Amino acid sequence: MKAEVLTIGDELLRGEIVDSNKSFLSDRLLQLDIETRFHSSVLDDPDDMTDAFRRAAGRVDVVLVSGGLGPTRDDLTVEVLASSFGRKLVRDEASLRGIEAFFERFGRAMTPNNAKQADFPEGAEILPNPIGTAPGCMMEEDGTLFFCMPGVPRELHRMMDEQVLPRLAARAGKQGRVVRAKLLRTFGMGESTLDDELADLAREEGLTLGFRTAFPDNYLRPVAHGATAEEADARLAGLCEAIHARIGPLIYGEDDETMEQVTGQLLAQQRRTIAVAESCTGGQLGARITSVSGSSAYFLGGVVAYSNEAKQALLDVPAALLEEHGAVSGPVAVAMAEGARGRFGADFAVATTGISGPEGGSDEKPVGLVYVGFASAEASEAQEFLFPFDRERHRTVTTQVALDWVRRTLLGEERVAPRYLRRPR
Amino acid sequence: MKAEVLTIGDELLRGEIVDSNKSFLSDRLLQLDIETRFHSSVLDDPDDMTDAFRRAAGRVDVVLVSGGLGPTRDDLTVEVLASSFGRKLVRDEASLRGIEAFFERFGRAMTPNNAKQADFPEGAEILPNPIGTAPGCMMEEDGTLFFCMPGVPRELHRMMDEQVLPRLAARAGKQGRVVRAKLLRTFGMGESTLDDELADLAREEGLTLGFRTAFPDNYLRPVAHGATAEEADARLAGLCEAIHARIGPLIYGEDDETMEQVTGQLLAQQRRTIAVAESCTGGQLGARITSVSGSSAYFLGGVVAYSNEAKQALLDVPAALLEEHGAVSGPVAVAMAEGARGRFGADFAVATTGISGPEGGSDEKPVGLVYVGFASAEASEAQEFLFPFDRERHRTVTTQVALDWVRRTLLGEERVAPRYLRRPR
Repeated sequence: MKAEVLTIGDELLRGEIVDSNKSFLSDRLLQLDIETRFHSSVLDDPDDMTDAFRRAAGRVDVVLVSGGLGPTRDDLTVEVLASSFGRKLVRDEASLRGIEAFFERFGRAMTPNNAKQADFPEGAEILPNPIGTAPGCMMEEDGTLFFCMPGVPRELHRMMDEQVLPRLAARAGKQGRVVRAKLLRTFGMGESTLDDELADLAREEGLTLGFRTAFPDNYLRPVAHGATAEEADARLAGLCEAIHARIGPLIYGEDDETMEQVTGQLLAQQRRTIAVAESCTGGQLGARITSVSGSSAYFLGGVVAYSNEAKQALLDVPAALLEEHGAVSGPVAVAMAEGARGRFGADFAVATTGISGPEGGSDEKPVGLVYVGFASAEASEAQEFLFPFDRERHRTVTTQVALDWVRRTLLGEERVAPRYLRRPR
Repeated sequence: MKAEVLTIGDELLRGEIVDSNKSFLSDRLLQLDIETRFHSSVLDDPDDMTDAFRRAAGRVDVVLVSGGLGPTRDDLTVEVLASSFGRKLVRDEASLRGIEAFFERFGRAMTPNNAKQADFPEGAEILPNPIGTAPGCMMEEDGTLFFCMPGVPRELHRMMDEQVLPRLAARAGKQGRVVRAKLLRTFGMGESTLDDELADLAREEGLTLGFRTAFPDNYLRPVAHGATAEEADARLAGLCEAIHARIGPLIYGEDDETMEQVTGQLLAQQRRTIAVAESCTGGQLGARITSVSGSSAYFLGGVVAYSNEAKQALLDVPAALLEEHGAVSGPVAVAMAEGARGRFGADFAVATTGISGPEGGSDEKPVGLVYVGFASAEASEAQEFLFPFDRERHRTVTTQVALDWVRRTLLGEERVAPRYLRRPR
């Protein structure tokens, strides 16, 4: 099956927003092994929309349409889709009651315009929208399937996953194929090394393994096909198991899980607490940890010690240590972590000190150099890295290393932060 | 003039990356008052590319093409553009020497494939690429202008601004019009209020004033047309002056300037230092300040005090104050700011304490409530806000308020953080 993603809205064409719906939808289609051949966007203009619908019908099997389902005069998707193929609009009473109920629940007044959101092309199947007023719809035209979804990402994501993908999978199933896929998030090994390590696992018929970089991570996408759901599920499980057996500790999460969520869950489950001491990351490590709702259960706090004076006064780093080794050094990273652990009374502490650039490097301590320190009741340690990235990415990968170190410690795994990023000697 | 933006590359259609080139290019076109009518993306496939080129030539005046200029077999943009309109490829010797020099400079070996990057359709004008190996080109076909640019955003941005926009402006100029535009970044007033306040300023012939939200900011885009560059410049300057006269303090920067850059520049210029104390923002305020290279000149450090114990131990907030008012309160915000100022010995300190949600709210202190504290040698103060945003945006707008407070103080302006966001009483 070949697909086109068509997004509709003046705001897209004015460059006001980056259209992330297109990549989301194509990524999801790939889970079912459906290739997106075209991305298109048009204005809220009936002529341009008609052209786009008809052209799509002539060149692909599946058209995912996003946007133009709202209640305003500019929202024309359903109306124009119907007229493009000579269909009438039919009001769906169940959808109308749903829209009325939505307004009642929030105590807002319903306008006549909202009622038009219950109109659909004759013969279309309605796709419920549990978190918004605009239902979507599916319509088949001469062998091409059109799916109309809202432009609001939150609503679009849910409708795609709950309504569209199952229908597409069922259709693929009728053609004798069921597809199952997963996203495995890895951190700590380069893409080409991952490829070398794992490529032989997916040689079997019905299995594929995709790779994709998403800085600072690399994602794996195992995909399994089968004649039945059971067969596809079993194949996918087998492939995932084989991947885990090879590179288990590098896989920190699945699908939408972030490193801070996974690390936070482990801290909460094991009832351990954490504190941070940051120099080069400037607060980003704390910001990532606390971006997770409920993080106050395990995060006690942090010190951003940009100046040497602050490292001494708030983290008890000895002046002699700063003098002897410099602020960007392993011993200072350890002392910062120990200082934070002591000050906050935490089980663990992590510390960062480095040169994110573009200024501030020297021959001995070049831009990119960074030390991550770790302290627990058992031991303290620092590791040295040289990251060849710009300032922003330098800070991001540094916080990822620090979080991953905590995660690995909580899992009882080897405390090795990514070897491929270490400073060459 | 009507435009189409056409991006080329398999990776776009697989959903691996969010294609931000499209919105960048459309945004830039709007500066010249050129409307983008279509966004399209196709695979690195000669047939699909040919279709896309020919369709674009038939429906718009300007086509901005991005991607497919690299040295690999998949990079076909120039070759297919030539063949789509029956033109020969011609090697440009000056470009070839430029590519050779590029490889020499970086001590890398040049492959025969790289030489093909010096081939262009007959009659095309070459657009230099000072930071990459792939030059771009401009070609006119039956009244439609094609501009081919690299897909790498850094290279694309520079080529668009330095090569493409001047050529488009010159063409508009030949038609008797010169266009000048600016982006003014405002924080602290809602879009509709801004519209009410300013709409009458652009009623004059040749002037327009656009509005656009970019959370947590609102951007203004004054655009001026004129018969000559002098006329357009003068009109734009006049409009900007009138806007500044009305809402001056709300405008914190122009074009790409961020709040943390502007505030940092003022701190550096006035040789003042700053420290932060963060609760709900968890480190994000420090992270934003230190995202600016050179921030160590004015940023001394911060404390992320998530627990009450940390607020006492590291920021000297009195236990009685926490007991009486609670951690989320004005008096505690003031005490946190004063504590940070004292501990770090800074000229200014800002503090945040609030409930970012979705958990942790109560009737008296609902989700969204936040206090921002400010301390200087002269005075300490806190302000109360109720932001109806999700966790992430709650934290973002809180850090923006804090940075803006510092900026306004340094400019000697009224210390008023945005009134429209204050908690209603």
